[in-house]
Amino acid sequence: MTQNPIGSTGPGSTDVPVVTLDDVRDAARRLAGVAHRTPVLRSRTLDALVGAEVHLKCETFQRGGAFKFRGAYNALSRLTPQELARGVVAHSSGNHAQALALAARELGSHAVIVMPEDSPKSKKDATAGYGAEIIYYDRYTEDRTALSRRLAEERGLALIPPFDHPHVIAGQGTTALELIEETGPLDALLVPVGGGGLMAGAATAATALVPGIRMIGVEPEAGDDTRRSLAAGHRVTVPVPRTIADGQAVETPGELTFAVNRRLLDSVVLVSDDEIRAAMKLAFERLKIVTEPSGASALAALLAGRIDPLPPRVGVIISGGNVGVERFLELLG
Amino acid sequence: MTQNPIGSTGPGSTDVPVVTLDDVRDAARRLAGVAHRTPVLRSRTLDALVGAEVHLKCETFQRGGAFKFRGAYNALSRLTPQELARGVVAHSSGNHAQALALAARELGSHAVIVMPEDSPKSKKDATAGYGAEIIYYDRYTEDRTALSRRLAEERGLALIPPFDHPHVIAGQGTTALELIEETGPLDALLVPVGGGGLMAGAATAATALVPGIRMIGVEPEAGDDTRRSLAAGHRVTVPVPRTIADGQAVETPGELTFAVNRRLLDSVVLVSDDEIRAAMKLAFERLKIVTEPSGASALAALLAGRIDPLPPRVGVIISGGNVGVERFLELLG
Repeated sequence: MTQNPIGSTGPGSTDVPVVTLDDVRDAARRLAGVAHRTPVLRSRTLDALVGAEVHLKCETFQRGGAFKFRGAYNALSRLTPQELARGVVAHSSGNHAQALALAARELGSHAVIVMPEDSPKSKKDATAGYGAEIIYYDRYTEDRTALSRRLAEERGLALIPPFDHPHVIAGQGTTALELIEETGPLDALLVPVGGGGLMAGAATAATALVPGIRMIGVEPEAGDDTRRSLAAGHRVTVPVPRTIADGQAVETPGELTFAVNRRLLDSVVLVSDDEIRAAMKLAFERLKIVTEPSGASALAALLAGRIDPLPPRVGVIISGGNVGVERFLELLG
Repeated sequence: MTQNPIGSTGPGSTDVPVVTLDDVRDAARRLAGVAHRTPVLRSRTLDALVGAEVHLKCETFQRGGAFKFRGAYNALSRLTPQELARGVVAHSSGNHAQALALAARELGSHAVIVMPEDSPKSKKDATAGYGAEIIYYDRYTEDRTALSRRLAEERGLALIPPFDHPHVIAGQGTTALELIEETGPLDALLVPVGGGGLMAGAATAATALVPGIRMIGVEPEAGDDTRRSLAAGHRVTVPVPRTIADGQAVETPGELTFAVNRRLLDSVVLVSDDEIRAAMKLAFERLKIVTEPSGASALAALLAGRIDPLPPRVGVIISGGNVGVERFLELLG
């Protein structure tokens, strides 16, 4: 199931986990003092509204504005000095790009980012601001994977994928590790699913720390590739998702992430763009935090009553807040 | 200087402090488990931008969306069971109204809020949502102070002013106590000044914990009553301030708050409405937090270079985030 295994995955095995709790703990040690230990927010208004005790792990406050820095930095921290000197490359619609740029700068490396032309301006600006070199492509006609592979070969760059990599997955898992260290056992954890890296990491940590915890993935209606793949029992591809949740506009689950998620997920629920907008508005007006659409999708599922039955103690990962004022007005104005 | 002294102020004395560090510590004990211990956020982007290590105490995440809950709850927690049973009254169209409503509900009391008929619906709804009884008055023909005094007398309600009260001041001081407990000594602390209650409480705590700390108040240009009063050596009244910072649109400093602030403040600096807008935008896009105009004014002073020389380690109180999406768009759209 997992080809080209790295880290703790044994070649040819279908049962050896891609990532273990120990890998997540190791990532946490590497991230200590580099990544922010993000706050876990509570709101009695929210609790009363949904009828549960809700703990919000706010990766909006992570460096680079999203959880992605955790995985990117963990992966880069394992490169050799020679590899770091040559530089790194990734294709990303946004947050992974910023994260990689930041991690590369932090470790004295150079990041090349392959990014869709139609990415939000705030994400382009921030990525350039962190010192990365940006190469644009048209996401409806060009193959970003081939483009970044060619760059990696031609320039000797290390290819750091946005989700399908054990060190990236382990890094993202530190979100759930920190959350549960702070809250103690939770009954369920709601996690936005794009390529599935955050979910795979969080599920690895959370199910090891809290046996029986319900891991619930949340996808936008138009980008339900992981839900369909779980139903089919193998990875399926959906049409290019058209959704405001650009960070979750993924057509196919990752190979490694799906191997983890099919084993550890309880279910995947879907939210509409309007439900995401309502969650962004509630996050703004009641929680006072800025969320980008993908960042608010797990909260949207909770607010829309998608978790049924809803257990007493629920964790929600607010995965990112990279949205400019203009784009926010466009979405909610 | 301080008439009608309550708490630690001795009658007839001009030198005995209105509030002491012990009063603030006592308030902290009363607030433990009731008020949120709000997060202190850091941003390397912000640090690089201003050239200092900045610690942001985010009262946006306080219950009721602003620091006001601290003072209101501390004051109410000292009423007798009989007084609580009769209820409390305040005139306010803003954050103090919501804070008092919330504190009253928490302590099994009943809050009566005197509010202008033409207050924004969102504020009426929020205050009513916390269970308060709202009494409307016509701001063009009626005197709200006389009305709330009459209500207090007729119904035996305890009148809880928004800032000019030792228990309110002591409660607000817990912001600085928590901040410095978390950060250790700071060189300066920037605090928005409206009626001066937050500043008086924060200055009481901070100067006792960190002798030599520079306490810098921040007022909107149009509402510089405290700056003018400090210069004059006595309380002066300015014309009704026209500013987007509605929480700081105060004409005259409080009697007790000014007695504290004239003793403990290093200086007061001013910010324009446009500088406040720029700070709100930066808070949104880089810090991912929602700030109302008054809440962002201390950050605005920092960003606008008003603190000169700027010492290495600076605390900033972000005092509140009660602004709806529509109003936010109006201000920044």
